[in-house]
Amino acid sequence: MQRAAAIMLPQLGGQALSYGAGAGPGTLIAWLVGHLQRVEAHPVSITETLITGGNSDAIDQLCTLCTQPGDVVFAESPTYHLAIRILRDHPLDLRPAPADEHGLQVDVLADAIARLRREGRRPRMLYTVPTFHNPTGVSLSDERRRALIELAEAEGMVIVEDDVYRELVYDGTAPASLWSLAPRGVVVRLGSFAKSLAPGLRLGWLNAEAALIERFVNSGLRDSAGGTSHFAGMVVAAFCESGAYDELGQRFRAEYRRRRDTLLDALAEHLPATCSWTKPAGGYFVWINTPVDTVALLPRAEAAGVGYVPGSKFHIDGRGQTALRLAFSLYPPDQLAEGARRLGQALKEVV
Amino acid sequence: MQRAAAIMLPQLGGQALSYGAGAGPGTLIAWLVGHLQRVEAHPVSITETLITGGNSDAIDQLCTLCTQPGDVVFAESPTYHLAIRILRDHPLDLRPAPADEHGLQVDVLADAIARLRREGRRPRMLYTVPTFHNPTGVSLSDERRRALIELAEAEGMVIVEDDVYRELVYDGTAPASLWSLAPRGVVVRLGSFAKSLAPGLRLGWLNAEAALIERFVNSGLRDSAGGTSHFAGMVVAAFCESGAYDELGQRFRAEYRRRRDTLLDALAEHLPATCSWTKPAGGYFVWINTPVDTVALLPRAEAAGVGYVPGSKFHIDGRGQTALRLAFSLYPPDQLAEGARRLGQALKEVV
Repeated sequence: MQRAAAIMLPQLGGQALSYGAGAGPGTLIAWLVGHLQRVEAHPVSITETLITGGNSDAIDQLCTLCTQPGDVVFAESPTYHLAIRILRDHPLDLRPAPADEHGLQVDVLADAIARLRREGRRPRMLYTVPTFHNPTGVSLSDERRRALIELAEAEGMVIVEDDVYRELVYDGTAPASLWSLAPRGVVVRLGSFAKSLAPGLRLGWLNAEAALIERFVNSGLRDSAGGTSHFAGMVVAAFCESGAYDELGQRFRAEYRRRRDTLLDALAEHLPATCSWTKPAGGYFVWINTPVDTVALLPRAEAAGVGYVPGSKFHIDGRGQTALRLAFSLYPPDQLAEGARRLGQALKEVV
Repeated sequence: MQRAAAIMLPQLGGQALSYGAGAGPGTLIAWLVGHLQRVEAHPVSITETLITGGNSDAIDQLCTLCTQPGDVVFAESPTYHLAIRILRDHPLDLRPAPADEHGLQVDVLADAIARLRREGRRPRMLYTVPTFHNPTGVSLSDERRRALIELAEAEGMVIVEDDVYRELVYDGTAPASLWSLAPRGVVVRLGSFAKSLAPGLRLGWLNAEAALIERFVNSGLRDSAGGTSHFAGMVVAAFCESGAYDELGQRFRAEYRRRRDTLLDALAEHLPATCSWTKPAGGYFVWINTPVDTVALLPRAEAAGVGYVPGSKFHIDGRGQTALRLAFSLYPPDQLAEGARRLGQALKEVV
């Protein structure tokens, strides 16, 4: 990043320090459009691409610009718990869309929407992480993807697809995004440099129909300030253009694959037979079902030197009390293996 | 900025690329607290300081986190027109608080609030630029400042003080901020690096009572993403610590003073006697009252090679039709003088 800054600033420092375009730096958008087409073999247009301050910023601004007070917004449950907190900071009617071990249950969502319509209401938005899900690590099946898109299209509901883990794929290729499968106007896809490069950059992107991109660009915020995280975006454009992003992606995938494999092996070795867990093909997370209350277990686990996030944190309907989320992204393999051993011990003491 | 990045990244690159604290980089907050005390000879505490993505971001987040749908928010009229657009992107009941050539008319605002109370309602917030106002360049008198604070305190109304021009002072010292004059909890003061350093950084700060800072830090957005514009903030911390910020401030003030003086001299030479204008002691702007419709005049002025923003843009109540705003920040003195000559010509043709 230091080299990228040293290359970019003498050439484009004036641009990097000026307001910049509301949609984001043109250099970054140009690179991104080519990159996204390579990642997913699906055409992406400049007019359908907006640079954001990352997915959290994008969710916040989607709420501000594309919802009205009281709008019904579904969030899959379990889901990324801090996305829920962003949604809750807006005056929305937030409802759970239950998910099972194959991801979002589209038929259950369809029933919930049918009940809603009987109240004379329609859903505005659905938040979902269909690929390498946070917290479960699973991906929505192709069949459910198509059913979900059909449902959203019929109901006029916008799907907000948090696609932050797409590039962290360890087995085969990632499933096609909802964005690439859906007709225009049904899906807003959120991508980020937070996982595939660095979170401190506060930098991501959004793919949506051109009219929605225009709504963002013409918002008061961007009209006044220009694009979000502009300076970081100019540095990252130089970083990506140098080829360093692709190189880093390969290193990330190789290392995270090693960590996942180590963790899954260690879980198989150390966890009681009463536990089951997901085998993620990408992303950061393993979701473990246990026979115990994982909130109650946490102090015991922490005393033994291992941490996790209790499953109930990721639900908006009180479920998940016996589940827990492990992340294999932060720690080297030997620590992950030791962590699994300690977790197994803590579980065996109470089971 | 290149030197700052080259110094910071080898030492603190890991921090700059990690999530970072929700309140912003500690290094930047530490420098800022000392700097703000020097600027205004008023103590500022770390717990009352938050790093923002600039004043536009701060206004947007204040609306999201500190208002309810339908809340009455006053904005002085005229005021910064793009702040109005940010406020309008939120479901608020926006009302004008008229200003005259001495700034916000506190007695008129008090009457408007009294009428509001007769409807059983109270104002939530007031947006104002009391120092080197955008668009008029004037500063609110000390007497009106104290009256405004008293009114806001009595009514439980939060004053959002856009203090972005404070450091661009050309005559004497800037008036004491509302923030420094008011009891805790009455004023939220917004400061920014956009005018005193560079807008592309998307970096500013907010001073408010510690409980409001906590509300921001504990918001879903910051809990999920960390502080806003974190990477730029880490670079700017190194820039400021090097002494470069203070040096640059002196250069900015000297150059902008020269531009203001040149423009005011040229206006006196070229504008018809039927025009009057403000003589700003700081900031970017001169506000001109003319005898003509300035929207109708604009094509003629532009054909003569001079631009301005018509006064009606800055009002939310349809006033300002014969006023216009000039900015002396962008152009060198000779171009400002020539612009004044052209504007005078365009005005004389229609007066």
